[in-house]
Amino acid sequence: MALEVFWGSGSGPAWRVLLALAIKGVPYESRLLSFSKAEHKTPELLAISQRGKVPIIRDGDFGLSESLAILTYLERKHPTPPLFGTTPEDAGHILRVIMDHQCYGSPTILAITPALLTGKHEEQREKITEALPLVRDELARLTKQLGDHAFLVGDAISAADIFVFPLIKTLERAVAKPGADTFDHGLRPLGGAYPALAAWVARIEALPGYEATFPPHWREG
Amino acid sequence: MALEVFWGSGSGPAWRVLLALAIKGVPYESRLLSFSKAEHKTPELLAISQRGKVPIIRDGDFGLSESLAILTYLERKHPTPPLFGTTPEDAGHILRVIMDHQCYGSPTILAITPALLTGKHEEQREKITEALPLVRDELARLTKQLGDHAFLVGDAISAADIFVFPLIKTLERAVAKPGADTFDHGLRPLGGAYPALAAWVARIEALPGYEATFPPHWREG
Repeated sequence: MALEVFWGSGSGPAWRVLLALAIKGVPYESRLLSFSKAEHKTPELLAISQRGKVPIIRDGDFGLSESLAILTYLERKHPTPPLFGTTPEDAGHILRVIMDHQCYGSPTILAITPALLTGKHEEQREKITEALPLVRDELARLTKQLGDHAFLVGDAISAADIFVFPLIKTLERAVAKPGADTFDHGLRPLGGAYPALAAWVARIEALPGYEATFPPHWREG
Repeated sequence: MALEVFWGSGSGPAWRVLLALAIKGVPYESRLLSFSKAEHKTPELLAISQRGKVPIIRDGDFGLSESLAILTYLERKHPTPPLFGTTPEDAGHILRVIMDHQCYGSPTILAITPALLTGKHEEQREKITEALPLVRDELARLTKQLGDHAFLVGDAISAADIFVFPLIKTLERAVAKPGADTFDHGLRPLGGAYPALAAWVARIEALPGYEATFPPHWREG
């Protein structure tokens, strides 16, 4: 049986795995789970992902959770094209960008997106207002990391781009929600204040196979 | 010039890098920084680590921050002994344990250690009391991950052990501080409730070169 991917629509970590599979051209069986039906908390999947989180893969009798772990596994199984660099220096930079996003960029952006996505912008107005300058700082850091390059570490797509991209798309979606325009966020369109970052987003969206990775429920609004 | 390592005494992330270098037998120049003198925030180091965090390495004109990034770089430059597994499956499991610690285990333990280490156990009594069962859950998870093996992923030491170890030692130190015994934590000695975990700690402490990685100021009490 082909590799199975268990994922949820709109899960950023799961999106990373689908992007890596698309880029590497690895065929897979898509197992889109319903969170509201707790399909990610069956005994079978909890045996692989004890905390009940997606993404999860199953490859024969091997199961694995955690997006970065899955990307690492896929890199070893399907090395071409490489997503973790071809030199020690690039490999180091790719992990640096990934861990920087994990430790700093991601918590900063996640301080505002859930409230905007769920219409709680009034209840969390103060928190969002305070966090917005920090979000802009993070976008400026990513712009600086891009520099003159097409991708975050050099001119080839890497696991760094894959790791960061879903949350940037989530942020774009959040600031387009009703009520988000009551904040002076300056993030719509993203290319207004961050043209290099918007061009990077477009570059990833143009990848062959991208459409199949897009969160299905986002198409509904 | 040999590889330079910029670190701070007691920094868990920096400790990981020193452990990896000891295990791989890579010679390095130790640059122990004083945080109180802000030696980690010089323009030279901020150019490598923009957020002013250690560890940082400099290898010729190549500089890198973030412990997992540095471990990845070292693995590519000095592949023996391997710290990221020899099979795709082991590589995946190693990263799963690392990211699980980063996302869940580490924040849980860090909810109690700073208060105990700085004598703020009374001010934070409620928070510590609530967090202790969760800390014990995390130690039970690590015990389960060890299973019958010598290390967290199989019988060879890996980046997973190196990544988790410093915070377990920090926890041991925290529960030995004055005032910590006013909580019913059941963590002293660690081997009382978690013998397999204590044996794993002892196994890492017995590694050649371990002594040179031990935080200098911890010897003072």
